[in-house]
Amino acid sequence: MPVMHEIRRPQFEQSLDKVVIIPVGSTEQHGPHLPLGVDTYIAEGISEILAEKTGAIVAPAFSYGCKSKPLSGGGPLFKGTIDLNGTTMISLMYDVLCEFARDGIKKVFVNNAHFENQAFLDEAMDLATREFPELKCVQSNWWDVLDQKTTDEIFSDVPFPGWALEHAAITETSLMMYLRPELVKNDLIPEDVTAKALPYSVYPPRRGMVPECGALASPKGSTPEKGKLIVDKAIEGFLKIFEAEFA
Amino acid sequence: MPVMHEIRRPQFEQSLDKVVIIPVGSTEQHGPHLPLGVDTYIAEGISEILAEKTGAIVAPAFSYGCKSKPLSGGGPLFKGTIDLNGTTMISLMYDVLCEFARDGIKKVFVNNAHFENQAFLDEAMDLATREFPELKCVQSNWWDVLDQKTTDEIFSDVPFPGWALEHAAITETSLMMYLRPELVKNDLIPEDVTAKALPYSVYPPRRGMVPECGALASPKGSTPEKGKLIVDKAIEGFLKIFEAEFA
Amino acid sequence: MPVMHEIRRPQFEQSLDKVVIIPVGSTEQHGPHLPLGVDTYIAEGISEILAEKTGAIVAPAFSYGCKSKPLSGGGPLFKGTIDLNGTTMISLMYDVLCEFARDGIKKVFVNNAHFENQAFLDEAMDLATREFPELKCVQSNWWDVLDQKTTDEIFSDVPFPGWALEHAAITETSLMMYLRPELVKNDLIPEDVTAKALPYSVYPPRRGMVPECGALASPKGSTPEKGKLIVDKAIEGFLKIFEAEFA
Amino acid sequence: MPVMHEIRRPQFEQSLDKVVIIPVGSTEQHGPHLPLGVDTYIAEGISEILAEKTGAIVAPAFSYGCKSKPLSGGGPLFKGTIDLNGTTMISLMYDVLCEFARDGIKKVFVNNAHFENQAFLDEAMDLATREFPELKCVQSNWWDVLDQKTTDEIFSDVPFPGWALEHAAITETSLMMYLRPELVKNDLIPEDVTAKALPYSVYPPRRGMVPECGALASPKGSTPEKGKLIVDKAIEGFLKIFEAEFA
Amino acid sequence: MPVMHEIRRPQFEQSLDKVVIIPVGSTEQHGPHLPLGVDTYIAEGISEILAEKTGAIVAPAFSYGCKSKPLSGGGPLFKGTIDLNGTTMISLMYDVLCEFARDGIKKVFVNNAHFENQAFLDEAMDLATREFPELKCVQSNWWDVLDQKTTDEIFSDVPFPGWALEHAAITETSLMMYLRPELVKNDLIPEDVTAKALPYSVYPPRRGMVPECGALASPKGSTPEKGKLIVDKAIEGFLKIFEAEFA
Amino acid sequence: MPVMHEIRRPQFEQSLDKVVIIPVGSTEQHGPHLPLGVDTYIAEGISEILAEKTGAIVAPAFSYGCKSKPLSGGGPLFKGTIDLNGTTMISLMYDVLCEFARDGIKKVFVNNAHFENQAFLDEAMDLATREFPELKCVQSNWWDVLDQKTTDEIFSDVPFPGWALEHAAITETSLMMYLRPELVKNDLIPEDVTAKALPYSVYPPRRGMVPECGALASPKGSTPEKGKLIVDKAIEGFLKIFEAEFA
Repeated sequence: MPVMHEIRRPQFEQSLDKVVIIPVGSTEQHGPHLPLGVDTYIAEGISEILAEKTGAIVAPAFSYGCKSKPLSGGGPLFKGTIDLNGTTMISLMYDVLCEFARDGIKKVFVNNAHFENQAFLDEAMDLATREFPELKCVQSNWWDVLDQKTTDEIFSDVPFPGWALEHAAITETSLMMYLRPELVKNDLIPEDVTAKALPYSVYPPRRGMVPECGALASPKGSTPEKGKLIVDKAIEGFLKIFEAEFA
Repeated sequence: MPVMHEIRRPQFEQSLDKVVIIPVGSTEQHGPHLPLGVDTYIAEGISEILAEKTGAIVAPAFSYGCKSKPLSGGGPLFKGTIDLNGTTMISLMYDVLCEFARDGIKKVFVNNAHFENQAFLDEAMDLATREFPELKCVQSNWWDVLDQKTTDEIFSDVPFPGWALEHAAITETSLMMYLRPELVKNDLIPEDVTAKALPYSVYPPRRGMVPECGALASPKGSTPEKGKLIVDKAIEGFLKIFEAEFA
Repeated sequence: MPVMHEIRRPQFEQSLDKVVIIPVGSTEQHGPHLPLGVDTYIAEGISEILAEKTGAIVAPAFSYGCKSKPLSGGGPLFKGTIDLNGTTMISLMYDVLCEFARDGIKKVFVNNAHFENQAFLDEAMDLATREFPELKCVQSNWWDVLDQKTTDEIFSDVPFPGWALEHAAITETSLMMYLRPELVKNDLIPEDVTAKALPYSVYPPRRGMVPECGALASPKGSTPEKGKLIVDKAIEGFLKIFEAEFA
Repeated sequence: MPVMHEIRRPQFEQSLDKVVIIPVGSTEQHGPHLPLGVDTYIAEGISEILAEKTGAIVAPAFSYGCKSKPLSGGGPLFKGTIDLNGTTMISLMYDVLCEFARDGIKKVFVNNAHFENQAFLDEAMDLATREFPELKCVQSNWWDVLDQKTTDEIFSDVPFPGWALEHAAITETSLMMYLRPELVKNDLIPEDVTAKALPYSVYPPRRGMVPECGALASPKGSTPEKGKLIVDKAIEGFLKIFEAEFA
Repeated sequence: MPVMHEIRRPQFEQSLDKVVIIPVGSTEQHGPHLPLGVDTYIAEGISEILAEKTGAIVAPAFSYGCKSKPLSGGGPLFKGTIDLNGTTMISLMYDVLCEFARDGIKKVFVNNAHFENQAFLDEAMDLATREFPELKCVQSNWWDVLDQKTTDEIFSDVPFPGWALEHAAITETSLMMYLRPELVKNDLIPEDVTAKALPYSVYPPRRGMVPECGALASPKGSTPEKGKLIVDKAIEGFLKIFEAEFA
Repeated sequence: MPVMHEIRRPQFEQSLDKVVIIPVGSTEQHGPHLPLGVDTYIAEGISEILAEKTGAIVAPAFSYGCKSKPLSGGGPLFKGTIDLNGTTMISLMYDVLCEFARDGIKKVFVNNAHFENQAFLDEAMDLATREFPELKCVQSNWWDVLDQKTTDEIFSDVPFPGWALEHAAITETSLMMYLRPELVKNDLIPEDVTAKALPYSVYPPRRGMVPECGALASPKGSTPEKGKLIVDKAIEGFLKIFEAEFA
């Protein structure tokens, strides 16, 4: 199995032409029904499937992420969310990318499952590839590669609240039902969740901007089948990226 | 006119209860027809109108922005774009916010007109308000407060390419035609621009991913009237934010 | 099982008086017979046992560690070792500790299994507890809590090369045989490994200072029983620390 | 007019052999009669005249400066002064210089009008030219290029208090009367200002070390003619520098 | 003798109400006739005399300074100059000041003898006293406290080249002849040194801007008597500062 | 004597092929009988002897060190200890090493006498030699080069408490009796000191973990002869390192 921590040095030495996938997640509250590791589990789960299909190596996941936005994940308003400063994430990803480059790795795919990480990961990728221009580094995530048809299908029986409110809601809950069903508490799925996406950010965060349950839209209607659909389509999207960038 | 650099200390001392608006732009190529200062001009222009309507003070604009994304503004692929590292932007906005807080300012509105700044500005706002919790700090931008009806109207005669491709295209060109018409070269507006938004980022950037003209969608169909519409609607949106957060 | 990523927010909210254990490992070559994740597997494995005995919560492990010393782990002389700069590790642990403190956690046990992390973790613990003096933070590791009798028993049939050379050797191999036997390649265990601990460090590292196999002493004589003995004694030592510091 | 924000990318691409002038100012209280933007207006104003005479390009000004010294500008003792930390200024100028160098610019003239910026700008220039040795970077300011005869002429009717006390006093007031007369409040010019330059710095700053009016010497005797004289002589001095370094 | 490194903890514990003097020097070439430690020797020498007169404690000197300016000390153009980056100096002085404050020290006098350190020391003093407002921190140097009469006397028989050119010239040579005569090579004193102070800085530095001998004005005419005069007058000036700030 | 601060530039220019020794000490309480500069005096003292034997140059000592561990030196529990943050030490040594490399120095020996500096010095050495790979940089200390026979001899009449407790105890006291006898207060040597080395670190530090006298083991039995023995053996060990690495 192509999990980097499980392989031994001689195996790694023979894999320098492979793509290294770095799953990036978070430690973040995901409502009453999902565990704190949701983003990391999803990033790791999809990465392992992708690695099996492509022969890539899955590097150790980043289990702590950038600051959960108060208006999406709730940020510091909820306990259980352990966030990194933006500069720490930049340094962390920068160091790791440079080290892979020093070892001779030429292709890295950053598979991010926590929206707030995105800009800081791009910054690190830019800095690392300036220093190691022979390293090619791609970042994507499961939600950006889904096509309209897939989204329509997932939300055929419930309204789509918009991606900004899909925190601990149908897509993440369905993904967990498929990838880690034992960690989902079906009986604690909140109903009647109503939040509104605001066209601005505000600091310091204040209680009441986000539903007390910690989800931003109702996860009602989540199914493992929807989770499988998302995974399948994400893998499909990622394979196209591999084809375009790493072939 | 409530431009901070134009007022004198005694005037500022009597304005501590006002909102300070910080326009944040960039120095970035915007195709053959628009000047390098587009984002800054738009941020400043809208800020001044907003200040006149609200009695707010307009702080000196940030004229250099975060790294232009290779797949949107073209980043380092084009000359004339002068970018800051993410950590520099965090420090810059952090220092400025803390200084306003030390002076007794309680309300800051960050009016950003360069997408790539967003995450780094939020980071700085979070850090500064942790140190000065009595400071309330809001960030928004002109495109996030436009409603569907407005977008429909702007793109009534041409197709909407999606916000990801609206670089140096209809909205920015129209805004400049309204706010700074003398700086728009109508005869150099590129036609037949076709770019495709990719669901990933890739570093190092490579030529050919973005049209050589530097715009991501055709600015054809831009008019000062559309520019005025956007400004009016942005102001409308910002006024609602002021009402909700600073009243 | 008290693994933080598996529990949900409401459970975490009710655990604020518990000890949080942070396992800290590395991604480092460990000879031809052990996988790259040895330090992380050991840190995690012992942490989970400790958590079961004490009701503590196991936070997500740090899977990347500080720079492997050229004269012990081989550092950049071997591929497969992905190291963080010291300043990155300080920031990473500092951020995580501060976040736990902000959530109301009062007791953290840093269970480190990669020697080179030690000074940087202490630095972070010092900085974080200066900011949050009500947080008590302890760092230890499995080798420092073993008593002489245990070491004598482990090395009853082979000579003890000194801790400085115990890299990918008997103690780590035995620990992996007990905790993760499926990841140990018994048939690849190197024999006749002879290295000498030098009383100095030298940069840049050069090949030939460390045996080509990547282990610093022969792992011959490793057994799962010795691994179990180390785990049992480490747990015993850690329980004494919990008693002394967290009771 | 060769203002960088007003030109378009194709124009910039054809200007790579030109000198880029970066005006560096501040946001700092300048007594009851001058606006907060004095240093920036002066830096920009002189830069634009210099650019017209030399064909140089004027980059966007730095509108926030380093910490106003308590014993000169009053620092945090007065409201309206928004200062950057020294490390932020180093990063800001370093980033901007490196970006110009990456674009192919070979000559940069940093035109500073806020004394306290000086050492930090030099530091950034040193760091940037180490990385891009083909970039030549010069820093000067209007007061260092004035000759004795000019200073004598300016202070022919009033005593010269020394440069250390020329804050919001005759030279700056005269410069503003010439460059931005509409922003000078002649009727608020303070009289009988007596301050003493101290041969040391002291922190934290305390009230009473600087006259309450915020000027350090009386601006009485300021005239637009003196302002013009300073501008003319500064331009003369800068042209000699251009001749010596950029010819 | 009140040298901090020579006293023991119990003595220090009884000295918390005293002034701590921190001598700050450099490691910098000072022509063919003076040793590399000139600035440090002068800072230490004067500090010890001052301490004897005031009962202050002399902390360990800073033996490495900020970047020697190419146009004064010659910077990297000469070997033997070992410079710190500005950010390092800020951190170094910041850490030391905070530590003294934590120990209960309330008065620190930074006695700087290397011009280029000045701005960075002020920055550190500002940052440290923000964190420890009860700490009073003063910076001065021997040349700023000399009165006109003293300067006239020193340069009664030779012309005064201006402070900008007083590097390895009469004042520093005389000071060393008085404080450390055994380290001055009288027979190597350069004659006919002609340099011109430029009203700008330029990077990267280039050979030929500074006389090859490394002094900027001729040290001819230096005497131990002039050295004693400077020391006496500096002490006189510092005592006035102590009286004004630490009484 | 080959002390860098005492030599002049031309001498340094002719010494580029020599080894530069950097003594690294601290400012740290060392019980009631030893001065605060113990570590620096020892580092400097041994460095000068070593330099005389090898023709090396002794660079200015680092007189401030990394954070004294609460469980060894007592850290912030005692006054008189002035510590640097780890990141400051990394920057400080990094800057100094890079500067020596820029001057053409190829061999640096870091002679450290304060245990807590070790990891941060290694980090700096790694970073500097990555940038200047032609620089060879070695770190050692007096205690790591002592052989068992020497330790046995030193502790022939008193029990060896282990290196972890040798703070202000027999080895350091003996070294000071030999190198700086005038600074040792024999009549204040504490007796009956009993401390226990703990197999963990804990923050924040608390009083009572370390004996109130500030020594961790009794210095009784210290003699100048033992001091001489340690110096002789350390020199012997360092000469072997020079032979192996710098020949």
